[in-house]
Amino acid sequence: MTFDAEKALLPTGMCDGLPPEAAKEAACVERLMTAFAAWGYARVKPPLFEFEDSLLSGSGRTMATHAFRFADPASGRMLALRPDMTLQVARIASTRLKTAPRPLRLGYAGQIVRIKGSQLRPERQFGQVGAELIGVATPDADAEVILMAIESLAGIGVGALSVDLGMPTLVPAFCDDMQIAEAHRHDLRLALDRKDSAAVHALKDRIGADSARVLGAMLTATGPIERTLDALRALDLPEKAALERDRLETVARIVAAGAPDLEITADPVENRGFEYHSGVTFAFFSRAAGAELGRGGRYRTDDANGGEAATGLTLYMDTILTMMPPPPETKRIFLPAGTARDAARTLRTQGWQTISDLDGGGADHPDFTSSERETGTTADKARHMGCSHFWLNGTAVEI
Amino acid sequence: MTFDAEKALLPTGMCDGLPPEAAKEAACVERLMTAFAAWGYARVKPPLFEFEDSLLSGSGRTMATHAFRFADPASGRMLALRPDMTLQVARIASTRLKTAPRPLRLGYAGQIVRIKGSQLRPERQFGQVGAELIGVATPDADAEVILMAIESLAGIGVGALSVDLGMPTLVPAFCDDMQIAEAHRHDLRLALDRKDSAAVHALKDRIGADSARVLGAMLTATGPIERTLDALRALDLPEKAALERDRLETVARIVAAGAPDLEITADPVENRGFEYHSGVTFAFFSRAAGAELGRGGRYRTDDANGGEAATGLTLYMDTILTMMPPPPETKRIFLPAGTARDAARTLRTQGWQTISDLDGGGADHPDFTSSERETGTTADKARHMGCSHFWLNGTAVEI
Repeated sequence: MTFDAEKALLPTGMCDGLPPEAAKEAACVERLMTAFAAWGYARVKPPLFEFEDSLLSGSGRTMATHAFRFADPASGRMLALRPDMTLQVARIASTRLKTAPRPLRLGYAGQIVRIKGSQLRPERQFGQVGAELIGVATPDADAEVILMAIESLAGIGVGALSVDLGMPTLVPAFCDDMQIAEAHRHDLRLALDRKDSAAVHALKDRIGADSARVLGAMLTATGPIERTLDALRALDLPEKAALERDRLETVARIVAAGAPDLEITADPVENRGFEYHSGVTFAFFSRAAGAELGRGGRYRTDDANGGEAATGLTLYMDTILTMMPPPPETKRIFLPAGTARDAARTLRTQGWQTISDLDGGGADHPDFTSSERETGTTADKARHMGCSHFWLNGTAVEI
Repeated sequence: MTFDAEKALLPTGMCDGLPPEAAKEAACVERLMTAFAAWGYARVKPPLFEFEDSLLSGSGRTMATHAFRFADPASGRMLALRPDMTLQVARIASTRLKTAPRPLRLGYAGQIVRIKGSQLRPERQFGQVGAELIGVATPDADAEVILMAIESLAGIGVGALSVDLGMPTLVPAFCDDMQIAEAHRHDLRLALDRKDSAAVHALKDRIGADSARVLGAMLTATGPIERTLDALRALDLPEKAALERDRLETVARIVAAGAPDLEITADPVENRGFEYHSGVTFAFFSRAAGAELGRGGRYRTDDANGGEAATGLTLYMDTILTMMPPPPETKRIFLPAGTARDAARTLRTQGWQTISDLDGGGADHPDFTSSERETGTTADKARHMGCSHFWLNGTAVEI
């Protein structure tokens, strides 16, 4: 291994963003943040690390195993690199922006770091872009973040979008209604998470035959939203579960009205990744990709006063970037030595990328004895530098 | 201390970027990166951390005491959070972009973290924006990065700019010419760094009376560039030192021609912060601020093959942000419940920030029994949400 090859080795899951991808990513992030700002979501910028016992407490505990930790010589306390920004934004809402008018709309974009990648996503550093809507619990609020994400993704050129709605509170509400003992709920959850109808049916002696039948029916009530809602309505759900179903239906109707072309599906018993959510959840997909583009849902912020109703979304920039159409080609022009500064500046304001010749030379250079020779040499240099044009006698000449 | 107050406590030197500053910072960074791109500087995005022995080796050793370090469970090796991005960009140039055509122009923007703030800058997390020009050693290259920085800063509204040029290689070249022993150079350096003419004079028995006289004259040859160049020319410098002076003069002349309104000063013996530079250095100021806006200079990249000639610049976003004119006021409009989605979307595409009412209500809400009542309530809500307008019967009504 040469010294260079060794230097090129980055830790697992870390990478160098190179041209043109790094610029494409940054442009895409800024366009999403601009779209969020147009919906009133004001940007916040939480720090890269915080005290471990603040960042990883409360709802942050689920993130504790994902965070790099290290000692702070300044305070003697342990610090943690943020594995997620959602909780930082909720912290800002409940502390520094405690007295800002509600509903509070916040957007954010930044880098997060996790101690371990997954098989599916070996990366350990991610670009996270998201938005949180804090202090309002209405179905219109759930719908707003979904519609904003859809409009924003479509705006940057990600097409064929779909959203999959979830209601992780439906099964717990049903269990409460039916007074299913805590002791049975864990096994029920496992069976539902595995989408295992037989295992749900097998629980009938513990949770009652009726409950097992209804839960088995919920398990298969997935797919297009109308099919899900028809199936749930057919179940004649008890009181608390019916309220959860109604909420899902109301949010789905507002979203459908706001985005008539959007494909809406639902999986009313889906729970994985949504363990701490308290209402409608959602995941975005594109038929062109297959992979998830982002997700989010309703939750409560933690704080001493009981917290606030909130909903929010996170977009996965790595997946979204693979979906983006290629950027328009940049006009790139080579400027021979001696090109007037004003001409160069004007070209830049007209949208050209200017590449100045820095090797010296020009009219008085021995290499350039005739204009043919100059043109030839300039064209070669321009081509070498990846330019589409070069500048000659006040004109952009195409190569 | 309440729980909330405790949660609000961030580690020393870390802070939450709040609205509207966080958005202003991001916009400013992107405008600078767009300006750099127009000069052909392609964006790269190095990772937040690397292996300690790669990030902090070679020229990175000077940064070693500034970096947070922690163990990587994946490799068992030590990692370091980047205290600076310049060396990462030089690494990318000499590894992943080794075969890209030269000169190689790269730009970057990102967050850096240092273990300890200074008295002047207590922050430990900074936004760094910079550009590197690699593989070319001409005076035109030195001038390009200076002129690009000036044009880019002026483009985002930072006015009254000045640049202070340095030539940290001038004194070492003179010492070589005069065969001043290494043993004396350290004391000479200290005297020059302290701008202590008497101490330079006092070295005359060790370095020779002529050398002491010339170095003393260099020490006072600071100020407007013409004054510096006149003073240096009057010194009749020996061969190597004369080449360094000529280089400084050539770069200054190209910069002055490219930016006739720019105030150019020079301090030919300045060395502090430029210990590893190998040619013309520069620091940007604004007469409106006093504080330094950024700096850079010529250096050599490290690599197994002897490295490459390079020059680069770093801008200090915290100082630059304090100089920025306030952003234009955003038109922010409150949309009562029931506002058509298409109307809302159209307003957003017209540059409005739309704030939807999520509290329900609307024409059929018992609170809104007459249009007067609706207007009054809507106006109150709009004001509460910081809006300048609200939407009524298809029109934007100013509050």
